[in-house]
Amino acid sequence: MCFLFSWCTFIKSPKSSQGHHVSMSSIDGVKVCVCVFQSLDYDNSENQLFLEEERRMSFLGFKCLEISRWVICGLIGFLTGLIACCIDIAVENLAGVKYYVVKQNIEKFTEVGGLSISLILWAVLNSAFVMVGAVIVAFFEPGAAGSGIPQIKCYLNGVKIPRVVRLKTLVVKVCGVICSVAGGLAVGKEGPMIHSGAVVAAGVSQGRSTSLKKDFKIFEYFRRDTEKRDFVSAGAAAGVSAAFGAPVGTHCTTCPSAQHVPQHNMSLSTTCPSAQHVPQHNMSHSAQHVPLCTTCPTLHNMSHSAQHVPLCGLLGALFNILNYWLTIFRIRYVHRPCLQVMEAMLVAAVTATVSFAMIYFSNDCQPLGPDQSEDYPLQLFCADGEYNSMATAFFNTPERSVRSLFHNPPGSYNPLTLSLFTLTYFFLACWTYGLTVSAGVFIPSLLIGAAWGRLFGILLAAITPNGSVWAVPGKYALMGAAAQLGGIVRMTLSLTVIMVEATGNVTYGLPIMLVLLTAKIVGDYFVEGLYDIHIKLQSVPFLHLEAPATSHWLTAREVMGAPVTCFNRIEKVGTIVDVLSNTSTNHNGFPVIVPLIISEQSMTPPFFIHPCFLSSLSLIPSSSPQLGKICGLILRSQLIVLLKHKVFVELARSRLTQRKLQLKDFRDAYPRFPPIQSIHVSQDERECMMDLTEFMNPTPYTVPQETSLPRVFKLFRALGLRHLVVVDSENRVVGLVTRKDLARYHLGKHGLEEMQLAQT
Amino acid sequence: MCFLFSWCTFIKSPKSSQGHHVSMSSIDGVKVCVCVFQSLDYDNSENQLFLEEERRMSFLGFKCLEISRWVICGLIGFLTGLIACCIDIAVENLAGVKYYVVKQNIEKFTEVGGLSISLILWAVLNSAFVMVGAVIVAFFEPGAAGSGIPQIKCYLNGVKIPRVVRLKTLVVKVCGVICSVAGGLAVGKEGPMIHSGAVVAAGVSQGRSTSLKKDFKIFEYFRRDTEKRDFVSAGAAAGVSAAFGAPVGTHCTTCPSAQHVPQHNMSLSTTCPSAQHVPQHNMSHSAQHVPLCTTCPTLHNMSHSAQHVPLCGLLGALFNILNYWLTIFRIRYVHRPCLQVMEAMLVAAVTATVSFAMIYFSNDCQPLGPDQSEDYPLQLFCADGEYNSMATAFFNTPERSVRSLFHNPPGSYNPLTLSLFTLTYFFLACWTYGLTVSAGVFIPSLLIGAAWGRLFGILLAAITPNGSVWAVPGKYALMGAAAQLGGIVRMTLSLTVIMVEATGNVTYGLPIMLVLLTAKIVGDYFVEGLYDIHIKLQSVPFLHLEAPATSHWLTAREVMGAPVTCFNRIEKVGTIVDVLSNTSTNHNGFPVIVPLIISEQSMTPPFFIHPCFLSSLSLIPSSSPQLGKICGLILRSQLIVLLKHKVFVELARSRLTQRKLQLKDFRDAYPRFPPIQSIHVSQDERECMMDLTEFMNPTPYTVPQETSLPRVFKLFRALGLRHLVVVDSENRVVGLVTRKDLARYHLGKHGLEEMQLAQT
Repeated sequence: MCFLFSWCTFIKSPKSSQGHHVSMSSIDGVKVCVCVFQSLDYDNSENQLFLEEERRMSFLGFKCLEISRWVICGLIGFLTGLIACCIDIAVENLAGVKYYVVKQNIEKFTEVGGLSISLILWAVLNSAFVMVGAVIVAFFEPGAAGSGIPQIKCYLNGVKIPRVVRLKTLVVKVCGVICSVAGGLAVGKEGPMIHSGAVVAAGVSQGRSTSLKKDFKIFEYFRRDTEKRDFVSAGAAAGVSAAFGAPVGTHCTTCPSAQHVPQHNMSLSTTCPSAQHVPQHNMSHSAQHVPLCTTCPTLHNMSHSAQHVPLCGLLGALFNILNYWLTIFRIRYVHRPCLQVMEAMLVAAVTATVSFAMIYFSNDCQPLGPDQSEDYPLQLFCADGEYNSMATAFFNTPERSVRSLFHNPPGSYNPLTLSLFTLTYFFLACWTYGLTVSAGVFIPSLLIGAAWGRLFGILLAAITPNGSVWAVPGKYALMGAAAQLGGIVRMTLSLTVIMVEATGNVTYGLPIMLVLLTAKIVGDYFVEGLYDIHIKLQSVPFLHLEAPATSHWLTAREVMGAPVTCFNRIEKVGTIVDVLSNTSTNHNGFPVIVPLIISEQSMTPPFFIHPCFLSSLSLIPSSSPQLGKICGLILRSQLIVLLKHKVFVELARSRLTQRKLQLKDFRDAYPRFPPIQSIHVSQDERECMMDLTEFMNPTPYTVPQETSLPRVFKLFRALGLRHLVVVDSENRVVGLVTRKDLARYHLGKHGLEEMQLAQT
Repeated sequence: MCFLFSWCTFIKSPKSSQGHHVSMSSIDGVKVCVCVFQSLDYDNSENQLFLEEERRMSFLGFKCLEISRWVICGLIGFLTGLIACCIDIAVENLAGVKYYVVKQNIEKFTEVGGLSISLILWAVLNSAFVMVGAVIVAFFEPGAAGSGIPQIKCYLNGVKIPRVVRLKTLVVKVCGVICSVAGGLAVGKEGPMIHSGAVVAAGVSQGRSTSLKKDFKIFEYFRRDTEKRDFVSAGAAAGVSAAFGAPVGTHCTTCPSAQHVPQHNMSLSTTCPSAQHVPQHNMSHSAQHVPLCTTCPTLHNMSHSAQHVPLCGLLGALFNILNYWLTIFRIRYVHRPCLQVMEAMLVAAVTATVSFAMIYFSNDCQPLGPDQSEDYPLQLFCADGEYNSMATAFFNTPERSVRSLFHNPPGSYNPLTLSLFTLTYFFLACWTYGLTVSAGVFIPSLLIGAAWGRLFGILLAAITPNGSVWAVPGKYALMGAAAQLGGIVRMTLSLTVIMVEATGNVTYGLPIMLVLLTAKIVGDYFVEGLYDIHIKLQSVPFLHLEAPATSHWLTAREVMGAPVTCFNRIEKVGTIVDVLSNTSTNHNGFPVIVPLIISEQSMTPPFFIHPCFLSSLSLIPSSSPQLGKICGLILRSQLIVLLKHKVFVELARSRLTQRKLQLKDFRDAYPRFPPIQSIHVSQDERECMMDLTEFMNPTPYTVPQETSLPRVFKLFRALGLRHLVVVDSENRVVGLVTRKDLARYHLGKHGLEEMQLAQT
């Protein structure tokens, strides 16, 4: 039921534009908005213009394109690294100032009493930061909310999430993440960095900014979905590399979500991480110095990690389930921007209060050693030369807390501190994810996992004989972090490589992989991954890797949309305008058919029909357009450009000098094609005819009606299609399969289930 | 021109069987054999039987299949690890005995003179080992020659290399590689280990051995190309893991060659490496103790690796070019098994002689330290307490030589020794690869690279001020090894991960990736990778990742094969037998058409034709089968099974009790379908009719004639097709595109080139 709701935070206001279409509907008495997402077209429309251009291009031209691709990738890598660096520096400085002020205040009031003033100061500072972050997200660019990884995943899958790769989103995202991390929320900055990389890539590769109305007249060849997708994928990879300092792991991350990315993109993505001259070593620095036994063989590690197995994934699944309920609650009741800002501020204040209470009531004092790496050691009620251990975990940015959990020597934390910390931080992080702020979930997951992993290690050392020798808490913290993160986001291969690269120790590769695999299997038994949950809650028609296993009894005839609006090869302008203006259908692709009443002049090759057919063909009434044989497919965006340039048969005859429409005209309009309402067509022009032959894709992929769903799915997913025409044995159009028709089937607990997606 | 030749070592004798078809032709006056490879079918034939089975299967059934997949992967991993372990132990022991005997002999004769006896002993021992290895390969199973990686690459790409995944190949491969490594050839055992993993996977996943005539009646569901391919991919991954101890790198290796492998296979492959309880740490042990500065930051490494750039890839390209000429020479003149064995023995003797001469004339004596890790330190003419440094490189298995080049302290080798060693070993390795022995090229490449890398490091330390401080020779050896290997095999991502995992140090990830990337770019400028060269020389119709860039002007009409042999939906048995027996065409897929003379009983749904058509349809003569509308596609293998079981319309009517043919019957015959000659069809039976409706794939993928080559290519590659039917606008079959039609276009230095492939 809840799949009907979509995440309103994406939508600023329920307006209807070409970019996205929003309709308001009332379900369960609750007013929710249903966004209907469009698809991207990862299959080139190989029309005559395109083929002519490709054929004109020399071998050298293709080489030049290849070089441009490398240049763009270099630029993407450099800019993404720069942005990540700025985020890092800003967060460190702001958080530093904040913690310094609060620490001074606490120290001042510890002696004289009145620590409640410190608490208020801390809570107000946090709320102020978070308020700024939440306001810009909620009021200026709701698309910048969350980690951005689900959005990029959808984009690479072929769903056009509105405004996800725009400049404004980038600016809001960067400012927002700085505010939310500095505001002390239980969030990380890795997701936003990956999103930033993707936006940078989408911008740089197009050689212009539509927002700034600046066209550099370069990289024009790359102005289409297929090429842009490749660069966005590379940009996301650059973002991963910048966030984790893991240039190799990047490949593994971006590939699974975009199966139809051609492989030359693999080599492209390689450049981005390599070209980053500003490597960010957040995690690698934090974990590189883990004082673990680096010489113990892999088998030893494996046996250790096996002890984690029962816990792997369970906590992650719990996190996801809680967050799922919370998100549904938010969709229903917290969908106005001011409410969202207030909730974010509330969470910030509560985080500060809870942290303060935990630190206040903790009596875990640790000696302040000479090799002390604490950044803000709080003495509080501890003896001189000691510090409060709970404060190490809470009075710190999450990243630094992870680092201290990984590499502080055994004995730095007592079990009670760790269990209290795990418990509170778990609920705080769960509450925080999904707020209308720009924030990621990687670091909080790692922190929760590291805490319970370390706790597990300490307990193991205590209860097993000789345990204190081999049960090094830091190692268990690492494994716990992997398990928790794997249980929440459910990546295996990519996370293994990223964590191995980040820890800088290959010995942990196999145990980490085992832990992640177990976490995935256990977690998948209960609930989906966090990103998938949020993708579903946004009712995004996301196509998974394969069709559901038990869907062989469905055929194209059952899943396709019918009847289909078709156009004739030479169509009346009025008809086209009317169809495009019809907001109730709002189709984006239209099969082009050869009318069955065949006049002599349209009988041109390549659509030769055997003469003896003609006698019978003319018997069929032309009133049912579905009966025409398919000869092409044309997109709404192409028709809009044609209408804008008034490419009418009559005008071409009268104005012979008129410039012929080129592919460049389509590229200039990409990606923000004007809505049909903005194009004025006079009453006279409505009577003109439009010849679509040159502009339609003459060879769309088609399937017969009897094709099974897995077969249709495979074709759709492997080629990145947007429209698949279903034809009968006579090649007549009988239906059209789109992404939504396929995405509505999914495998439930008891077999195939059909979702009731909001229809276009 | 030379693409016409194929590698004869694959073919035992020029016989024609269903497995592969060999025709002898005389080109350039030289008699060469041309193998015509068949394709694998990675697109399920979704006929009625298949769909019925899938629909009958419950949700629980699919879960069970999933579990079987994991079990199989576990078994594959375990067995592959076991085999790799056996190879390792056998090689170490045999080589140990050999070197011990020769060393004793040399020591005996160093004093008294007469070292020529030692030389002869060494050469004879080497030749004896190699003779055994070459004889079993040349006479028993020529498919086991070489590293096996090109063959597995082809298999995953969709080409059926004869006998590549058979039990006999596995046995010969394992024995052969033990002999050739113990015989002192410049070879490695990594390639054969990967091949072994693939064979194990192909065997285990089928739950039976056709060679041993043993059917365990398990895993019957997996008896088809699609499923088998997934397991072979996982097996190859397990092989990589066993060979390099690099469980994560395995994914990156297997994915690029098989783009159409579904992603669930990714998770399958994961289990194999993880399930290996016998991890092989060949390289990791060798390089884990490299005494390099592990704390120096990445940027420092990057600047170092940049100095390698001019050399990267050049030596690799040279290696490939020389080996290319050599292979052509071998194809022309060394194609008889006895000649091949003699060549292998010659190489073994020459290797021993050259090594001996190098050691004999070298005067690079090094002190024998207390931490000496030399296995067979040869004193020869050195003073007491010293050993011959050249012997460390030559008088050793290649793996141990690599290890000593990586981790021996600075000063262990003098530059002259290294340059002489690089030079001789380069030519020896180049001569060795392509011999009729089972042997890989990984370790020799690493050895050559490590030698010149170390040399480079030493020279750099000498000529730059302060160079001896930062120019650690071991590090340069590692970079050189990466560059040489990358220059020869041209993998980037997978090799990076493998080498990082093998060295156990992530710090080298970025520099290694840069070096490999440079090596690939430089190398690609001159010549293809070694594996690609050998794939081409075998005239395998290998499909690369994308269609050549400048191929947009080609359409399906130009590349397709026409006319196509079609069958009617209800076809005469005699016609089918005649077509299948026709050795000159030897087609494997046949479009099934609705005859245009339509009788009432065949007018069943789903192929409804509008009644008003009927009058005109009957006008078309039925003699041109190409004019029928396509209604399905049937494979030779399916027809053979039908003929074998005599599934004739007349017999079904007379014997009503006859068991209905099931999918199981097709699976039992898989993969070695009997040849048509072995099936007896009487004269009476020839007059019977066969109804193909139930068995044909009713929804084959089709494209119109105007589809551009890149579009056809994309469809073919993304879906793993074997046959793609080309239809006209009336859905009538006009042609058939197969793998060979696409593989013959490739990008040369000056644009698109069309190869003259030997036609089926």
